[in-house]
Amino acid sequence: MFQDNLKRLVSETEGGVAGLLMGFDGIAVDSYSAPDGGIDIQTVGMEFSFILTQVRKAAEILEVGAVQEIAIRAASLTILIRTVSTDYFVALAIRPDGNFGKGRYLLRVVAPKLQAEIA
Amino acid sequence: MFQDNLKRLVSETEGGVAGLLMGFDGIAVDSYSAPDGGIDIQTVGMEFSFILTQVRKAAEILEVGAVQEIAIRAASLTILIRTVSTDYFVALAIRPDGNFGKGRYLLRVVAPKLQAEIA
Repeated sequence: MFQDNLKRLVSETEGGVAGLLMGFDGIAVDSYSAPDGGIDIQTVGMEFSFILTQVRKAAEILEVGAVQEIAIRAASLTILIRTVSTDYFVALAIRPDGNFGKGRYLLRVVAPKLQAEIA
Repeated sequence: MFQDNLKRLVSETEGGVAGLLMGFDGIAVDSYSAPDGGIDIQTVGMEFSFILTQVRKAAEILEVGAVQEIAIRAASLTILIRTVSTDYFVALAIRPDGNFGKGRYLLRVVAPKLQAEIA
């Protein structure tokens, strides 16, 4: 289930605070927040669904193929995003000292599972 | 000089195709393309300067601190962006099979040098 995959994503990534499955229209399908997370992952997702749409448009203009992954590192939060299908993406928020590489790896593992479920 | 730093960035990153120093307004300061690059880095930068501005706005709304790094991985090109100052960013385009980690490392090395020069 979505919840199990999102929970795995967050709890197995050192420093993981929240995970989210969302449509590119900014409507969340499911989310999981670590007990001590302290961020509103739905709000984060809504802000970035718009950006993701812009990135897809830019990629189309530049003819660089489909957008697969986006990582945004801010001072107090890192956001990793992976495209699940043409309509959905999965996002993982991690603390700055969290394991970026592990998060990326788990997104790659989890994305096809979410895709299979949501199809 | 800008050119030396950009050239170093591109040539020392395996799979590096082009580097760019640009204002958030989309006006390029300097750029370097590998001889066999085959991409128009100025156009790439212009598309992404707009996105970067949107990301900075989102980060402000979400109160996650200053945006330091963005990575966008598309099917045929990866774009790494690092904020140099409040007005400028440096971007590196690498091939999908290029060395992502090395590119990120070199951006961290080069960004303060560019910042010192542009101040």
